[in-house]
Amino acid sequence: MKTTLSIIFSGMSIALVAQNDSAMLRKIYDYHLTQSNTYKNEEYLTTQIGGRLSGSPQAAEAVEWAKKAMYEAGADTVYLIPCMVPHWVRGPKEECRLSAVGTKKVQPLNICALGGSIPTPETGITAEVIEVHSFDELKKLGHEKVKGKIVFYNVLMKAEYIHTGSAYGEAVKYRWGGASEAAKYGAVASMVRSVTLANNDSPHTGAMGYDSTLTRIPTCAISTFGADLLSKMLKNDPKAKLFIKMGCQSLSEEKSYSVVGEIKGSEKPAKIILAGGHLDSWDTGQGAHDDGTGVVQSIEVLATFKKLGIKPKHTIRAVAFMNEENGARGGKTYAEYSEKNNLKHMVAIESDAGGFTPRAIGIETSEQQLAYFKYWQPLFVPYDLNIKKGWGGTDIDPLKKSGTLCMGLEPDSQRYFDYHHTPDDTFDKVNKRELELGAAAIASFLYLIDKYGIPCP
Amino acid sequence: MKTTLSIIFSGMSIALVAQNDSAMLRKIYDYHLTQSNTYKNEEYLTTQIGGRLSGSPQAAEAVEWAKKAMYEAGADTVYLIPCMVPHWVRGPKEECRLSAVGTKKVQPLNICALGGSIPTPETGITAEVIEVHSFDELKKLGHEKVKGKIVFYNVLMKAEYIHTGSAYGEAVKYRWGGASEAAKYGAVASMVRSVTLANNDSPHTGAMGYDSTLTRIPTCAISTFGADLLSKMLKNDPKAKLFIKMGCQSLSEEKSYSVVGEIKGSEKPAKIILAGGHLDSWDTGQGAHDDGTGVVQSIEVLATFKKLGIKPKHTIRAVAFMNEENGARGGKTYAEYSEKNNLKHMVAIESDAGGFTPRAIGIETSEQQLAYFKYWQPLFVPYDLNIKKGWGGTDIDPLKKSGTLCMGLEPDSQRYFDYHHTPDDTFDKVNKRELELGAAAIASFLYLIDKYGIPCP
Repeated sequence: MKTTLSIIFSGMSIALVAQNDSAMLRKIYDYHLTQSNTYKNEEYLTTQIGGRLSGSPQAAEAVEWAKKAMYEAGADTVYLIPCMVPHWVRGPKEECRLSAVGTKKVQPLNICALGGSIPTPETGITAEVIEVHSFDELKKLGHEKVKGKIVFYNVLMKAEYIHTGSAYGEAVKYRWGGASEAAKYGAVASMVRSVTLANNDSPHTGAMGYDSTLTRIPTCAISTFGADLLSKMLKNDPKAKLFIKMGCQSLSEEKSYSVVGEIKGSEKPAKIILAGGHLDSWDTGQGAHDDGTGVVQSIEVLATFKKLGIKPKHTIRAVAFMNEENGARGGKTYAEYSEKNNLKHMVAIESDAGGFTPRAIGIETSEQQLAYFKYWQPLFVPYDLNIKKGWGGTDIDPLKKSGTLCMGLEPDSQRYFDYHHTPDDTFDKVNKRELELGAAAIASFLYLIDKYGIPCP
Repeated sequence: MKTTLSIIFSGMSIALVAQNDSAMLRKIYDYHLTQSNTYKNEEYLTTQIGGRLSGSPQAAEAVEWAKKAMYEAGADTVYLIPCMVPHWVRGPKEECRLSAVGTKKVQPLNICALGGSIPTPETGITAEVIEVHSFDELKKLGHEKVKGKIVFYNVLMKAEYIHTGSAYGEAVKYRWGGASEAAKYGAVASMVRSVTLANNDSPHTGAMGYDSTLTRIPTCAISTFGADLLSKMLKNDPKAKLFIKMGCQSLSEEKSYSVVGEIKGSEKPAKIILAGGHLDSWDTGQGAHDDGTGVVQSIEVLATFKKLGIKPKHTIRAVAFMNEENGARGGKTYAEYSEKNNLKHMVAIESDAGGFTPRAIGIETSEQQLAYFKYWQPLFVPYDLNIKKGWGGTDIDPLKKSGTLCMGLEPDSQRYFDYHHTPDDTFDKVNKRELELGAAAIASFLYLIDKYGIPCP
């Protein structure tokens, strides 16, 4: 039977179909809020396996766990899609302290190496600090004022944005590119204010990249509390010397895997509907909101169909992508494997913005097509979920070139960057219901797509 | 100048007015997210004063603090509206343990007395337990099976509701009325499963009431973790004896105050627009989300007008009501004082559902009038704030009979009952931005009401 949107848009069928769908969505939400394994899976992944940076034993353990969890959720088949991943290790706890000139005062500061950074020499680096607030300011200071110093990017994330992701997007360039920009002018190391709106003593790690034409210098993040303190101390004592010691290093690339669990479609098995998150995480925390939650929500999409006895028409896939954090190799290789095997991904949705109360499904679509998706909006009113334009995610992005419609779960964004890439991204920060509501939102939306296809004129 | 809604609904003016309003709302939100004292005030109230049950020294201290904070926020005048409040004290930490029959096994359990409960004898109460799941079940058991026992209401809050307040509303009757219902059948004490969806070892206190025609028996709440454990142990050992000891007592009523800070209106000073929360809290935590957040958000409404140089046409009042938790005397006496002094409250908004991300302004209004309020909806789209039908709050409820239009801030509800009335309701559970966004939402909405009046046909 070909079900097209014309059915639900025409006359009396609207009410009938809406009534059925409404009842099914209620069942899906009931399942998630009362019976699902989402929270238990999150607990295991984060507290029993923990932080799982690409190439680590924990990442390997997470692959095995995801395979098992997908079968338990009801997957017919689980595939491991191999990928080579960077293997960067942090080494011993980083050291940092500011020594005042002419006194014995030494202030320890809380830092962490940025992912991908080279180490300092074993004896550390000791140098004066030059504080800047933009790349422009750095450029104006130039070689003369920067040479031999540690560049300290003390750039605040803007509090005015309502969605914290916008503020993050603006500030993160200093984390990613700060080292090479500083190296241009002869800096010996660089340090970035943690990319967060929280004011505390947790440094936020994250990926950085070197410009291969420039000297590589060590780079780290300092907590916001530490950044404020350092800035204040430098105002009083501009010649104070900062000591940084980091033992991180990049080892040889490792073989790893993205994990794919699937329920074969009964009518159109060649067409795939995908829900995904990323299995790897930074090493300093437990990878709870980034992105354990996206993984366990995706796995629970399979369970939704299985436990509620819904036979999907299309093939439903949950994908736990490897290496989103420092290379996105899982997403890239998945798209390559998909192309090679001529797989057709109709829709892909990613959950990689934390396990907070879901606010919207954000679709990478035209206004015209969005208007058709909006016919489903009334179904989601009881669940306070908006349907809007948005962005899918890093892992599913490479699928776009083969025509996949991408979308993302948009949870409430206020707390995400409080925990993101820190030792604080732990299981206890995840609220069971908020996590489950996100899983229910994804499952419900994919249920409708499976039933009706992509709505279009 | 009389500004009516017809202006903004007619022709070209829509765009002009909307543009101004949009810019002003942006200013209001900017103020709250970057300069407001909301979070600092919350920190002081919760960590420096702490839990502030009516009649306690902390409640008295909070009155003095609120007065000062309102002047600092820019109030022209601060009034203290007196009210007599119940003065119930918890006494020493409650004790509870289950002793198995025929073994020496003793299981301690975490309980707290419900507010208003009489104490146990000094030697405690030791009795068998009868577990029930509804008042109907209790009635069916009757006198014969209940007499001399401790009735244990093990009623789960329903997880299926999307808004946790609905589940709370359904389950809370066992906390409020459970003691007298049990006393009807000769029970010696009653115990209620904590009214929460969280599964942990924090017992949730809250108000209870006695039917004056029945014997008063001591009553307490057990943590959800404890409730599950107790239920399981009773299945194995139905004759096990429970020991409860509580030293709480009701002292003489005390004089206390609601605190009112006002900025006099420039055009219609006799018409009042009120924002309120309640200053008292339960004693076991810091009263952070319940309802420190509502108080500091209301105070910041005054600051919004003052700091942004907006001269309100109507009189703007922030009210920190006393004694919402166990008597609602502040709200009642405020309405009485208002009537006696012939005050006209045009609109009152209450924030008493936690300092979480605001989702909506819920208005106690008709569909017809809501449609007019909805003309403002586009202004709130950037802030993800919905305008809908809803309920005001306990403290402002008594103002309704004199024609006040009541409304409430509706924050995201998922975490509220995790902390509500427990030792966990502390400052660290409040996210700065979520709190500030709530204050900005209230201030923005009241700004529009002050400018245009209540929209109506």
